[in-house]
This record gives sequence, structure tokens and C-alpha cells, in this order.
Amino acid sequence: MMNTAGQTSRCRVAIAGFGTVGQAVARILASGIHPSLQLTHVCNRQVSRKVVDWVSPDVVWTETFADLLDGSVDIVVELIGGVSPAREWMEQALAAGVSVVTANKQVIAHDGTALAQCARAAERTLLFEAAVAGGVPIVRSLREGIAGDRLYRIQGVLNGTCNYILTRMEREGVSFEDALADAQRLGYAEADPTADVDGFDAQAKLAILVGVGLGCQVDVSDISLGSIRLVSAIDFSYAKRLGCVIRQVARAELLPDGGEIRAAVQPALVPEDSSLARVDGTQNIVVVDGEFGGETAFSGFGAGGAPTAVAVVSDLLAIAHGAPGRDDQGIPSRRRVVQQEFDAPHYIRFMIRDRPGILAALAEVFSRHGVNVDAVWQEPGWSKTELPFVMTLEACGSASVTAALDEISRFDFHVRPPLWLPILTMGEARA
Amino acid sequence: MMNTAGQTSRCRVAIAGFGTVGQAVARILASGIHPSLQLTHVCNRQVSRKVVDWVSPDVVWTETFADLLDGSVDIVVELIGGVSPAREWMEQALAAGVSVVTANKQVIAHDGTALAQCARAAERTLLFEAAVAGGVPIVRSLREGIAGDRLYRIQGVLNGTCNYILTRMEREGVSFEDALADAQRLGYAEADPTADVDGFDAQAKLAILVGVGLGCQVDVSDISLGSIRLVSAIDFSYAKRLGCVIRQVARAELLPDGGEIRAAVQPALVPEDSSLARVDGTQNIVVVDGEFGGETAFSGFGAGGAPTAVAVVSDLLAIAHGAPGRDDQGIPSRRRVVQQEFDAPHYIRFMIRDRPGILAALAEVFSRHGVNVDAVWQEPGWSKTELPFVMTLEACGSASVTAALDEISRFDFHVRPPLWLPILTMGEARA
Repeated sequence: MMNTAGQTSRCRVAIAGFGTVGQAVARILASGIHPSLQLTHVCNRQVSRKVVDWVSPDVVWTETFADLLDGSVDIVVELIGGVSPAREWMEQALAAGVSVVTANKQVIAHDGTALAQCARAAERTLLFEAAVAGGVPIVRSLREGIAGDRLYRIQGVLNGTCNYILTRMEREGVSFEDALADAQRLGYAEADPTADVDGFDAQAKLAILVGVGLGCQVDVSDISLGSIRLVSAIDFSYAKRLGCVIRQVARAELLPDGGEIRAAVQPALVPEDSSLARVDGTQNIVVVDGEFGGETAFSGFGAGGAPTAVAVVSDLLAIAHGAPGRDDQGIPSRRRVVQQEFDAPHYIRFMIRDRPGILAALAEVFSRHGVNVDAVWQEPGWSKTELPFVMTLEACGSASVTAALDEISRFDFHVRPPLWLPILTMGEARA
Repeated sequence: MMNTAGQTSRCRVAIAGFGTVGQAVARILASGIHPSLQLTHVCNRQVSRKVVDWVSPDVVWTETFADLLDGSVDIVVELIGGVSPAREWMEQALAAGVSVVTANKQVIAHDGTALAQCARAAERTLLFEAAVAGGVPIVRSLREGIAGDRLYRIQGVLNGTCNYILTRMEREGVSFEDALADAQRLGYAEADPTADVDGFDAQAKLAILVGVGLGCQVDVSDISLGSIRLVSAIDFSYAKRLGCVIRQVARAELLPDGGEIRAAVQPALVPEDSSLARVDGTQNIVVVDGEFGGETAFSGFGAGGAPTAVAVVSDLLAIAHGAPGRDDQGIPSRRRVVQQEFDAPHYIRFMIRDRPGILAALAEVFSRHGVNVDAVWQEPGWSKTELPFVMTLEACGSASVTAALDEISRFDFHVRPPLWLPILTMGEARA
């Protein structure tokens, strides 16, 4: 804390939630490299099984969150995850005059604005660098590092589990199921992988970046989602012919009129020489475009205890050394309507039982929806009873594509539902 | 400026030096997107030829720097470049109670510590995000974004001119001279390219990053330099065989004992799938390694009026909204000895008049210096009177290599002096 003479005294830190990240935070604090920070409390259920001998013997171990709010703590680090009681605990801490640092993306994505108002009312600080792309200091970079610009687009690979699965499929030709099973065995994916592979995790992170970077408050659930479950190994070989790879891409763009934004999380084809294609394995990347400064990219390890803990400790230091005094703490209060429609060329992969007339039938439906077919590709050597082929469509709105595919899905020749992916051309001019 | 009620009033900004960057800063301020900042003065030689009609008519145009220090300005933006009078002006501004934002890498690299002390004494702020990699918010990211970590290595491509020249040579096989001439025609290189191609520009930037990221103050001239002038098109084809490309790499590493650092700027072979290889044209990248968080990369446009202006305006906003109150403002006062010796495998390219016994002579000298030859490569189809061939050496200290090459250079078979480049393996464990 900064006292009036500008001197720094030790800032008393409590950790609520002593799992992987909490322990990694404690390790950094115990290393002594940050003399302005002092770990004073750890709060966890069944805390006795959590006690370690490598922190100061003065640390108070407790199962009762209220113990952290008795005036002896300056900052609570919330790492219990989930929405409740995490949100209530953060509110209680702020109301008690205790600043909060959190890695909780769901609470910040859904209730960040309300919590920021609590922080403002209490004249305390709420920071959440670790909630998005742990090892990449993207929240602070957007809020302060390129604050001088006016950003209009954010694109990112924000979910390391999806990126691990897709890069394994790309390089080794393994199936989605096998890559997922490996990710689960290695601890990169949960037993229930829904949050990662169906996009909910990246959706919450994107909502936070939209708030911090584009200055818009959006309803998280308004950001459209596409799952990577339907992507097959064959799609990577077709993508390669197009000079592309497949990534789970989170993207948001401020429409030029300023009233609406587009936002989506879905698998997409991206050029193999683009920044988004180059991020490896479980790494994350965020690419932002500004009106004045052009494109800037930030990449690093997105998850894991250690990078996330670094983000938490950086937030602790910011508070200890006098956090930025912005009134809004970077969380916007202006709500925006989310447009789910993006214009882009599209990749459609069909898996069919072959018979004459299929191409004509597909072309007729696309044409009726005003969508122009750019190319049709079929690799040799596949069975006529389970035949993959690909159509690429000229740039068109995603609504036209989905309307056409709705109709097309009623044909009887599909062996699997068609997969559609936008083809992103990075760095294009503003829409 | 933050007043006691936490309200933000307009912060009065003067620009000293109304060239490309200064005008780009004024454009951003004139756009009205940052209501907390108000351009009030412009100072330039022969200022009458600089007056523009797209700023407020209230702006004062002056040729006298002292006019900015009469109490009506909160922040001076120093963009005149060069060491003198820039440094004296910054000192005068701080002494007069005016904060300073600068893009001047030479002054910050050489005198940053003294200027930070002036700022501290005056209780004002000195910020210099634009001095390194304009469009990449690397100073603030190192100082705050990953402050929680303890960094031990910084590697970067910090000079866009060199990167433009080397990527042109790589992709189009053009000579250094032709690529340089193109860079000069396009405005990427000065008429005298020494500062860029011989490494002085990157050397100053690296000294600043060492201060901010590794917390060490070093003498700029202690950072060893290698020029890219000796690199030939042929070197790119040999590098490709090794799975590498050639980049001007600035790197610094804290030695584990903590007392010394290694620092150098020189052309080097880097793996073609590494972050450093992937930065295009005039872009910059900085890759940092931390004890806790692993590798984080930051890339974007390194120079040009607009990205640099964004960095300046971000610094202005930081001051307007209450700059971080760190006592040291991120500039270290602890001096370190710079070790110029790095251990690495090496690439040596000879250009010789062929005769029997050359290989044996070279091998004997290397062996005597304790250096093991890993491979010898010679592409077919070259004249015996100007024959390029390459030796790669197993990992060894650069001092052994230069000692051996000193001796080797006395042989009479050289048509051109041998070129030696370290082969960097990115992401290796700490030395």
C-alpha cells in the first residue's frame, strides 16, 4: 500500500482457494522476490489437509472466508472458481474495504460491471489479469499499453485445450476423439470437455476482452458458439490445400457505426502464415487491430498454475504499488447489441452417400440463398458410401450460409451433418 | 491529472518536435477520443512552417522550449531526437514540475537512470514506451504485466530495417546492397544506415529492456555488436538446410549467480519455426522467459509514426489517470557487468580460393582452440576461385570462436573475411 509519503509498506495478501494456482501464487510470494507482498491467510475447505511447511509459520489457515475480512488483510485473491459463492465473496471483500484479485473468468464475464461498481463504491481495486490467457498480460496491455489507440477488432486463440486438440489433429492426422482422450490424459482437458470444445470457456474470455479492449459490455450468451467436435482429420487436408489451418477462433469487431459489435467463437480456417495459425499447442494468442497503430499480437502460455499465478502476482503488485486510478477500472458500463453475422468466404464439408445429382441439388439451394459457390473439391480414394467433399463459398453472410445448410440438411444423402467453417483472411481492412 | 476527489480533469500536453511522430500524436489528440488530454503547445524550430489547421486554434506554436515550462503545461512530449538538447530539455521540464514522455531511445539508454532520479526528486513522471518497439507495449508489459515473474532472458528482433533487409534477402535471394537500397527508397532506412545495420539502434533498445525487464543498469557500449553487412544471400540457403533463418537478434540473459549479464546484438541463425523467425518485414518481436511463467511473446509494428504515436499517447493517458507510483519508475540503479560471451553452436561461412589442404588447416586451428567441428557443407556449382563453404561448430564460447577465426583470417586463401553467426536454439533451459 502507498502511504502519504509515497513509501511502500508490505501489502497483506489472503488466498481463497488453495489449488494448483493458489499454491503457485504462494510459491512466488514465499520466494521472497516481491518484498512488498506478504501472504497472511489461506482459506480453503478442509484446510488442514492443505497446510504446507514452506510458507511463513505466521500464515493463518482457515475454512471461514469471513476471517479474511477482519481488517488484517489488504487484498483477497479469489481462486475458488465457479460463480457462487465466488461472486458473493468478492462483493463481501470489496464492501469490507479489501481489494480483490481474481482468475475467475465466468464471474468477471457475467458480473464484472457490477463488481467494478462495488469496487468503485468501496474505493478499492478489482483486478482480473489471470481471467484471460493467464501467461499473456493482455488485460493490462489493452487497458494501458495501447490505451492511446482506438481498437476495433480483437481476434484470438484463447482456449489451450482446443488448440492442443486441433494442432494434434493437424500434425498427426489423429481423430478428434483420440486427441481429446490424450488431452484428458495429460490434464489439459476436463472429464467433461464441454466448456472447452464447445466454446464456453473462450466465450467468457472474449466477453472480458470486448469489455476491456473495445469498451463494450455484452451479454456473454449473445456471443455465438460453434463446437470443434465436428471437425475431422480430413478437414485439415482440405484446409491445407487452401493454405490454411483450423483453429478455434474467438473474434469480436466493433461495427463502424459504433452501435453494435459482432462476436463469435468457432472453429475457422486461418491462413497458415498468420499469427493465429502459428500459436502452438496449449499456447494462447490475442491479435488486436487499432485505428492508429495497426496490428499488435500477444502470445504466451494461456493456462497452467505457474503462468496464471504470475498474472495474479502482477495484479497484486499493481495494487501494492498504487493501482491505476481510472474511475471505471476498465470495465465498461455501456451495453452493446451483439450481431452474430460475419461476412466471410466459407468452407463446407459434406460427408455423403454418393448418387447422381447431388452437386446440382446443392448448387441450386446455395444459389437460391444468394450464395456463390467458389470451388468444389473431392479427394480420390474414398468409399462411395461415405464420401467427403468440400465446397468453398465466396464471401457471404453467415446467416445465408446457415439458412441454406438448414435446407440442405434435409436431403437424404448425408452420412454426417455438413460442417461449415468461415475462412478468415487476417489483417483485412475494417468491415 | 487526478485531483483529490479522484476526478479526472484535462491534462495539458505540449509536443516538442513536430515531425512524423509529433504530428501523429497531435492527430490522435485532435480526434477527440481521449477527453482527458488536451494539446496546448507545439514547439519546433522554424515553427511557422509547421502550423496546421486541424488542431485547436488555442494551441500555442513556439520556437522556445522555455515557453512550455511557464506553468501552463502538465506533460511535455519530447520528440526532437538526438542526445542534446533533448536530455537537457527533459531535465529542465522535470525540474520545472512537468512530467515527460519521450520516444528517445538514445537518451533513455544512456541517461535513463539519471533522468528517473530527476523525475523522482521532482515528484513527476518520466515514461518512454515509444523508445522501444513503438507499436508493442513492451515497457509497460515488462514493468507491470509480468511484474509478478522474475525474468532471466530477453530476446528480440528490435530493428525493423534489418528485419526488412534480411527477410527480403531470404525470400527473394537479393543481395544485402540491393535490399538496403530498396529499404532506403521506401523510407525504412536512413541515407547512412550505420545505426540500423551495425546494431547501434537495437543496442540502445536492448539496454532499455535490460533495465526494465531484468532490473539491471548496463553501459550501452558494453553490449557487443555484430553487423548484418557481411551476410550474403548464400548464407540463407545454408541456413535453410539447418532449418533456420537469419535475423538480427538482440538478446540478454541474467547469469544464474545474479552478478553479471550477457548481452549482444548480432545476426544469428534462429530455427524457422521459432517466434523470432516468424516476425515479418518491419515488425518487431520481444520474447521473454520468466522463472515462473515461461515464455511470453509480444509483437507488432516497431516503428512508423502511427504505432509510435499510440505508444506516446498511452503514456500520456497513464500520467493523466495517475501513473504507477513505483519509486524507481522501473529504472534500475544497480549496475551490472556485461559478459559478451555466449555459448552456442556456430555457423561459419568461408569464401575462398580453393587449393588442397584448406580443410585440414581450418580443422587444426579449431581443434587447437578446443572447438569441435560438427559438419562441413559445400554446395556444388561454384567457381574454385570464389568458393563458399560452411562449417558448423558444436556449442562453444564465442571467445574461442573469435580467437580461432583471428588466427584463421591470416591464411592467404580467403576471398572475403569469414562470417560467423551463433545458431540460437530458442526456449532452451537456462544456462
